[in-house]
Amino acid sequence: MALNTIMRIFQPKDRVFYTLFEQVVDTVLEMSDMLKRLIIETERDKRFAILSEIENAEHKNDDTTHRIYTELGRTFITPFDREDIHYLATTLDDVADYIYSSAKRMAFYNIANDDEGIIKLANLIGFAVQELKTAVTGLRNMRDLQAMTTALVKINSIENQADDIYDLSIERLFEMEQDVKMLIKKREVYHAMETATDKCEDAGNAIESIIVKYA
Amino acid sequence: MALNTIMRIFQPKDRVFYTLFEQVVDTVLEMSDMLKRLIIETERDKRFAILSEIENAEHKNDDTTHRIYTELGRTFITPFDREDIHYLATTLDDVADYIYSSAKRMAFYNIANDDEGIIKLANLIGFAVQELKTAVTGLRNMRDLQAMTTALVKINSIENQADDIYDLSIERLFEMEQDVKMLIKKREVYHAMETATDKCEDAGNAIESIIVKYA
Amino acid sequence: MALNTIMRIFQPKDRVFYTLFEQVVDTVLEMSDMLKRLIIETERDKRFAILSEIENAEHKNDDTTHRIYTELGRTFITPFDREDIHYLATTLDDVADYIYSSAKRMAFYNIANDDEGIIKLANLIGFAVQELKTAVTGLRNMRDLQAMTTALVKINSIENQADDIYDLSIERLFEMEQDVKMLIKKREVYHAMETATDKCEDAGNAIESIIVKYA
Repeated sequence: MALNTIMRIFQPKDRVFYTLFEQVVDTVLEMSDMLKRLIIETERDKRFAILSEIENAEHKNDDTTHRIYTELGRTFITPFDREDIHYLATTLDDVADYIYSSAKRMAFYNIANDDEGIIKLANLIGFAVQELKTAVTGLRNMRDLQAMTTALVKINSIENQADDIYDLSIERLFEMEQDVKMLIKKREVYHAMETATDKCEDAGNAIESIIVKYA
Repeated sequence: MALNTIMRIFQPKDRVFYTLFEQVVDTVLEMSDMLKRLIIETERDKRFAILSEIENAEHKNDDTTHRIYTELGRTFITPFDREDIHYLATTLDDVADYIYSSAKRMAFYNIANDDEGIIKLANLIGFAVQELKTAVTGLRNMRDLQAMTTALVKINSIENQADDIYDLSIERLFEMEQDVKMLIKKREVYHAMETATDKCEDAGNAIESIIVKYA
Repeated sequence: MALNTIMRIFQPKDRVFYTLFEQVVDTVLEMSDMLKRLIIETERDKRFAILSEIENAEHKNDDTTHRIYTELGRTFITPFDREDIHYLATTLDDVADYIYSSAKRMAFYNIANDDEGIIKLANLIGFAVQELKTAVTGLRNMRDLQAMTTALVKINSIENQADDIYDLSIERLFEMEQDVKMLIKKREVYHAMETATDKCEDAGNAIESIIVKYA
């Protein structure tokens, strides 16, 4: 019997969910750091090497998310409402997917490493995921609700900033970019990145829903 | 103690949901009227003034939708199934989002005010939201189920018409529009508007789900 | 009293769901066969004739899906968790929608019948729906869980292959296609087809969720 099987049996069911969610948010945070490195990288080979790291992290995260769903199916008593756990798992997985998708497009489309909008959006994704880590980690003890709520408010504000940068970037793109193929490619990258921040906000809403019921 | 706090305490929980949903559908109806004004407006400044009104309405609607979610978390007994309330709130909010998004693109992309497809789609959105108001208002007493069902059937038919207009507009766009940038811009507007009618249908489905369980 | 009304009354509620889901998956399988015929068809008229068949099947499927939702609203005891039934119905309906949408674009955009990526994606959709049929049919008796699980694993693998073909096709498209309008059109087709396989995976996940709770 493997050690982790024994641990799983003796670990109270609640803690399994906390541990899995903390693993997810840690992986997503690593992915957002890798994305920041990838977009300022100039060499094509190095970009694809980072993309490969991001892909591995994304696969790892798929497995952890899948375990959350499986536990949810098996466990009768859950620490929070089942729908909230399910929605939080789904939205955090979406954040990972859109980070991976942004990275893939940057690499495959060979997009320049000096696009102001892309750099700003990558930083905003990083900030939002950092706040998500605070909020997700707070679920375990539910002691510092103030810190959790502050994190959620920040995520909302970050998402608004990302919206504005997206709108401005798209407007500038249509004005300045003469190569229509590059316009289409960059628009895809902006869109994937902006959607990543949307999904951070959705994950924040899932946590808020948990806090509201708990308080 | 503010008057609305007192009212909230003494108001039976059921009515809170009715009142909030009626506020939402009223705001969305105003937004659909503003969208119709914006798209036939020729002056750029006036368009942005209307866009700013739409943005305010959208923010107001976000707050009301958020209150529905919060009440749902706090309230033990709800007038209808929680999932139906949640889905109705989400889909009505989506309608508002896509109206705002259509308006933003019309203004930022400086799209001509005489596009037949866009004018027809804006009218269809207006008709669909008008029917949604009938259906949502009917939830309070559940007396005139016939009128509610008729409204839902009309919403379905409007969505089908919007689909056809979307397909025709896209086909014509690819044939006629020589400026590929403008093609991309207009396609985005058509798509956002068509999605708004999809979301009206989804909201109608949420109401149908409520009626089926009640009848 | 119509025969099917009498049958519905006397049929245990459980079986209604099995029968409806089997109807859905049969229709979706027919649609995936029609899609394969449509994309290799060269004559415009014949393509539109097949498109019309697909549209009819899609409408029929809408009705069956709608009946699943209605039964779900009326039935107190369901064979599986309500959310799983709802999610399975929604995702199978999404598969049908994306098959129809791919077919519509192929016909309206008059896309050549020799695109390697499109042919491969159509075959993968067909394979995935075939596996879905195995998994959905297994729900009725829940006897051969091994065969069901094998089908779900295959669906996952097919979805991964579709992802890779999508990425490669898009990359090649940006490199080779000089006509930007055609580039936009083909990208839409690839995207609709790849999303169809995503939705097959989602439907597979719904079935997995049912198996996990049953085992």
